[in-house]
Amino acid sequence: MIPGELRLRLPDWVGDSVAGGPGAAATQEDRVRFVLGLATTSITHGTGGPFAAAVFERDSGRLVSVGLNLVVPANCSAAHAEVVALSLAQQAVGSFDLSSPGLAPMQLVASSEMCAMCLGAVAWSGVVEVASAATTEDVETIVGFDEGPRPVGAADELRRRGIEAHLGVLRDEGRAVLSAYAASGGPVYNPLRREAP
Amino acid sequence: MIPGELRLRLPDWVGDSVAGGPGAAATQEDRVRFVLGLATTSITHGTGGPFAAAVFERDSGRLVSVGLNLVVPANCSAAHAEVVALSLAQQAVGSFDLSSPGLAPMQLVASSEMCAMCLGAVAWSGVVEVASAATTEDVETIVGFDEGPRPVGAADELRRRGIEAHLGVLRDEGRAVLSAYAASGGPVYNPLRREAP
Repeated sequence: MIPGELRLRLPDWVGDSVAGGPGAAATQEDRVRFVLGLATTSITHGTGGPFAAAVFERDSGRLVSVGLNLVVPANCSAAHAEVVALSLAQQAVGSFDLSSPGLAPMQLVASSEMCAMCLGAVAWSGVVEVASAATTEDVETIVGFDEGPRPVGAADELRRRGIEAHLGVLRDEGRAVLSAYAASGGPVYNPLRREAP
Repeated sequence: MIPGELRLRLPDWVGDSVAGGPGAAATQEDRVRFVLGLATTSITHGTGGPFAAAVFERDSGRLVSVGLNLVVPANCSAAHAEVVALSLAQQAVGSFDLSSPGLAPMQLVASSEMCAMCLGAVAWSGVVEVASAATTEDVETIVGFDEGPRPVGAADELRRRGIEAHLGVLRDEGRAVLSAYAASGGPVYNPLRREAP
């Protein structure tokens, strides 16, 4: 028999964490800090690496969804925090398109710069803005994850689609979260091992 | 409350279709034809567009998983057939890495050329080979879907990671499936509307 269903579930602590969270986070920095807080709590709980993301209404700052990296716990290599946050935001609004008529413009905020897959997912999602803290280089040098193919001209592509990108917001705080993860000895899946010479 | 779970479920007809399917498909063409058959059945059942995919063991041709595009039924823009097939294959083997020790080398076969998100997902998945039928141009010209940012140098990137790519296998048969979908009047989500001038 082949499997017929995939379930991605956030760990139980997220509910409590979000209940005590921002509700509405006014500034870009507030939102990034909230996401970095989620990543830190995930490290403490050992629930899947130093990556977190969230979708906010761009103007009000209302929290729509939260995502964590569920690759290891869910056995799903596509379950990056960004993909989880976008997919759960779409569940929240009941549409595959976060730009559907009647919805407020949405923003995706991530603890680290997005990989090629997540940038592709952003293009399909309907968000109008993305922001991230640590850079790809930070992730590779501090933790040793393989961040994958570098999307050439990705920022330009997003801009062409009307999606604004802010990289390196509170980068130092983002780097600190990665350093804490490296110090915790948490697993590094997909390390830089597939790069043929 | 924010949502805490995402469920992606294949339609019920897939079980029957696969039970009558190849079991093991020896040749590349057999595998592509099986996937195009799934896409055709999906059009007939109105369960989500002309896109299908499957993961096979590369050498034996044993079927590991099947994926359909679930974007509309699951309200999830990331649920392209390829992402669904890869994620379900990982559920089947109980690992986020289809190159885990002890597993046979795996191949992803898709009805159409992969978008940037799916190519990124391939890089993370552990498959060692990909194949597809219709091209990106076919999808855009015959049906009118926006296929998104063109991943520059994607084939080279996959090759650098030891992933072999075969595009345009049975392309004419792939085009015929797209034409059947266009003729059926099925929905075209994400049409070419976001391309700013």
